[in-house]
Amino acid sequence: MMDLIDRLRAAVGAANVLTGDDMAPHLVDWRGRYRGAARCVVRPGGVAEVAAIVRACAAAGAPIVPQGGNTGLCGAATPDAGGDAVVLILARMNRVRSIDPENNTLTAEAGCVLATLRQAAADAGRLFPLSLAAEGSAQLGGNLSTNAGGVQVLRYGNTRELTLGLEVVLPSGEVWDGLRGLRKDNTGYDLKQLFIGAEGTLGIITAATMKLFPRPTAVATAWVAVASPRAAVGLLAALQDGFGPLLTACEVVSDVALGFVLRHIPGAARPLAASPWYVLVELSSGGDDAELRARLETFLARVLEAEQGSDAVLAQSEAQARALWALRENISEAQKIEGISIKHDVSLPISRLPVFLEQADAALAAAFPGLRVVAFGHVGDGNLHYNLSMPEAGDNAAFVAAQPAVNRIVHDLVHAHGGSISAEHGIGQLKREELLRYKSPLEMELMRAVKRALDPQGLMNPGKVL
Amino acid sequence: MMDLIDRLRAAVGAANVLTGDDMAPHLVDWRGRYRGAARCVVRPGGVAEVAAIVRACAAAGAPIVPQGGNTGLCGAATPDAGGDAVVLILARMNRVRSIDPENNTLTAEAGCVLATLRQAAADAGRLFPLSLAAEGSAQLGGNLSTNAGGVQVLRYGNTRELTLGLEVVLPSGEVWDGLRGLRKDNTGYDLKQLFIGAEGTLGIITAATMKLFPRPTAVATAWVAVASPRAAVGLLAALQDGFGPLLTACEVVSDVALGFVLRHIPGAARPLAASPWYVLVELSSGGDDAELRARLETFLARVLEAEQGSDAVLAQSEAQARALWALRENISEAQKIEGISIKHDVSLPISRLPVFLEQADAALAAAFPGLRVVAFGHVGDGNLHYNLSMPEAGDNAAFVAAQPAVNRIVHDLVHAHGGSISAEHGIGQLKREELLRYKSPLEMELMRAVKRALDPQGLMNPGKVL
Repeated sequence: MMDLIDRLRAAVGAANVLTGDDMAPHLVDWRGRYRGAARCVVRPGGVAEVAAIVRACAAAGAPIVPQGGNTGLCGAATPDAGGDAVVLILARMNRVRSIDPENNTLTAEAGCVLATLRQAAADAGRLFPLSLAAEGSAQLGGNLSTNAGGVQVLRYGNTRELTLGLEVVLPSGEVWDGLRGLRKDNTGYDLKQLFIGAEGTLGIITAATMKLFPRPTAVATAWVAVASPRAAVGLLAALQDGFGPLLTACEVVSDVALGFVLRHIPGAARPLAASPWYVLVELSSGGDDAELRARLETFLARVLEAEQGSDAVLAQSEAQARALWALRENISEAQKIEGISIKHDVSLPISRLPVFLEQADAALAAAFPGLRVVAFGHVGDGNLHYNLSMPEAGDNAAFVAAQPAVNRIVHDLVHAHGGSISAEHGIGQLKREELLRYKSPLEMELMRAVKRALDPQGLMNPGKVL
Repeated sequence: MMDLIDRLRAAVGAANVLTGDDMAPHLVDWRGRYRGAARCVVRPGGVAEVAAIVRACAAAGAPIVPQGGNTGLCGAATPDAGGDAVVLILARMNRVRSIDPENNTLTAEAGCVLATLRQAAADAGRLFPLSLAAEGSAQLGGNLSTNAGGVQVLRYGNTRELTLGLEVVLPSGEVWDGLRGLRKDNTGYDLKQLFIGAEGTLGIITAATMKLFPRPTAVATAWVAVASPRAAVGLLAALQDGFGPLLTACEVVSDVALGFVLRHIPGAARPLAASPWYVLVELSSGGDDAELRARLETFLARVLEAEQGSDAVLAQSEAQARALWALRENISEAQKIEGISIKHDVSLPISRLPVFLEQADAALAAAFPGLRVVAFGHVGDGNLHYNLSMPEAGDNAAFVAAQPAVNRIVHDLVHAHGGSISAEHGIGQLKREELLRYKSPLEMELMRAVKRALDPQGLMNPGKVL
C-alpha cells in the first residue's frame, strides 16, 4: 500500500507536493503569531485533484488544513504543531470560470486573488465589491471561509451576502456542485451557508458564484472631524437618512490611529486640523459625479452648521479621495511598524458603540495607566478594531503578556452590550477559548452537532473554531 | 401518566388547546389544496410555553406542525392525514419586543403579522421592507421559515438577508437564544441560517431581530410597455446602470396577466395602450421627491427614444402609484377568480429569462393547444410566476389533471437553464417529489444529515421539504 505522500504525488504530481523547507511559508501565519508543522503541502490544480487529496487523507486519517492567501489574522490557516496535517493550498485554482454581466454574476475558483476578481469584473463593466487591505494576496476561498467584511459592507454586505453558489469538496471526498447564479432559490436548506464562515472545518470550498453590481459612475469622498464616537454615530444616522443606499462606506478613525499613520507612512498628511475623531465618508451612485459631490457638500455644510462636526474636507479629485482612503487603510500597517499590540475585532449594536468605548477606555486606563488605544473601523457596521499598546517598548512586552486580563475587560464589555468578539476576522486558533466563554453551551453543542454531521472523522481543519 | 393533550392543557391553559371542529381553519391551507388531521391545535403565549409543548410532544413521540398566518402556497403548514400531529400556532406571540432606531433593528415575536411590523417600524421613523400580497395575515415566523421574498428584494434582499438574529425552540425543547442585532458577527457557524427557510423542519422560530432602514422620502413609480421579455431584461439593466440601489422594484407583467386583473378587479384600468408586456418600475431615495421623478422621467424619455419601450406612464401622485401597484398585486387574486390554474414559482439567471420563456411557451403550446400563459413576477430577481390554464372551464379540469406532464416541461427547462423550481414559495408538500428529481442525491443526503443532526427523532414538521 502506498503511503499518503505517494498517493498525493500520484494525485497532483510530485512537483505539487512540498516537503521539508519548501513548506516553510505555509507553516506560519501572516502576523508570525502561529507556527505549525505538516506532513506536506499539496497544491491541487482542479476540483478533481482536491477530491482525490481529501479521499487520500480521509483514508489515512490525516487532518487537512486548507490555506488561501495566508492573510488571516486568527491562525485559521496554520496547522498545529502535531506535524501530521496536510496543508492544502488553492493558489493554482485561480481561474475565472465565467462572467455573466447580464445576470451580474461571476464564477471563479477559490484560489483567485481578490484584486484579480475586481479587475475581471471591471473588464466586464461590472463591480465586484469585496475590498479589503489584503486584497492583493487574499484569495476568494479564504474570504468565503472567513466571511470577510471589508470597507463596503454597509452598501454591499459581507462575503456571505455576496455569495450565490458554492462548489465544495466534502470531508468524504465527494464534490457538492452548489454553483448557482440565482437571487432567489428556496429549494430546501441553504447548504452554502454552512460552509461560508466555517473556516474550512466542514469542507473545502473550491469555487463560488458571486454577485456583481453596476459600476458606480459617481463617487464622493469626505473626511469629517467629529468630537466623539457619539457624534460619529449621529453623523452616520444623518448620512443614512439623507443618502440611504448611496452611502457606500462610513469609517471612523481616532486621532491616535491617524497619528500612527502620519508617523510611519511616507507621504501621509493631515487633511484637517487635529480632532479627537474623524469619519471617512464615501457615497457612490450611477448618476453624475459633480452632482453627487455637490449633494455631499451641501450636506456637510449643514453638518458643520449644526455642530455635528467641527470641520470637513471633500475630495476634489480621485487622487485626493485615494489619499483620504490611504489614511484609513494604512492604520494596520502603521500599527505594525509602531510595534506589538493587543488587537480586538469587535462589533456592537451601533447604538451601543459610544457607551462601549467610554466604558472600555475608562476600565483599561484604570487597569493599565498610560495605555494607548488605537480605535478605528467600520462604524456603519458597528465594527471596531480596538487595538491597545503601551507607549514604551519596554512596558509593551509586559502588557502583551497581560493579554488575558485585557481581553477580559474588552470582551466582557462587548458581551454585556450584546456585541461580538469577532466581527470579521473569525475565530481560528486565536479566539477558540474566548468563544467558549461567551457562547452558550447549547450554541456550542449545536455547532458540534453540525460538525459531526458533516465531518464525522473530524479531519477538516481540526482545532480551529471548535 | 397524563396523556399528551392533558400535558398541553397544563402547559398553555385549556382554552389554548383546540380540538374537534375548532381545529378546522388550521387543517386546510389557504388555497384549499391540502387538508390534514391533527390531535389538537395549541396556541402558546410565550417561548417557555412553546418549549413545554415541544418537550411534551417529544416525550410522546408526536409530530409538531408549526403554523403562522397560514398563507403559504406549498402546504408546509398543513398536517398530513395521519391525525397524530400537534399543530402549533404562534398567533398569540405577537409582541414587538424592542425597536432600536439608532441600530436600525426590530426584535419581534414570530406571531407578529407583517403589516403590524411595517407599521411599528414606521411609527419609529423606520422602514421594515418585507412586503408581500399576504402581509395583512402572514406572520414573521412563517416568512422566516419560508425565506419569503416579495416586491422589494431587489433593494433589500430576501427575508434571510433581513435577519440578524433568531430565537428558536429546538426539537429537544431547549431554547436557543440567537437574538443579536449585529451587522457583522463571525463567531463560528452562522446557525440562524439553518432555521431560515427550513419550513419548520429543524425547530420552531419564536422571535427574530430584523434589519430596519431609513424611510425613503422620495418614490417614483412608472409603468412601461415593452415588446418582449428580452426588452424587459434590457430595461432592467439600464435601470440598474442608471439608478443602482435606488431601484427598489422591477416587476414584469404580461398582457394576459393584466387582462385577468382588468376583468376581475373592480376599479382596475389600463394605464397604457395594450402591449405584450409591461414593466413596473419603482425608485426610492432619501432625497427630493420631485427630483427623483424628474430623473425617472428623463430616463424614460431616453428609453422610448431608443425604442427599448413603446410607451410609459409616470405616476404623478401616491394614488396613481398605488393604482399601478394594484395592477401587479391583484394578479393572484384575479387568477383565483378566473379559475383553477397550474402555478409555477421559478427563478432563472436573469440572462436566461427570455430564452426560457420562449422555449417554455413554445413547448407548452405544442403540447396543450390553446393554453393561456399568465406570466409575471420579479424580473429584477429572475423570479417568475408562470401560471397556466385553459380558456374553457371544461378543458381546465383535464388540463389540471395533466399537471405532472406540465411540470415536466416547465421544470425541466428551468433546470436546464440553471434555475430553481421554487424561487420564493418553498417546498412544503407541493414540491417534495419535484425536489428529488432536480437535486443531486448528494445534496439531498447533505440535507438529511443536517435534519438528523438537529432533529434525530424526526418530529419537526415531518413530510415537508424532505
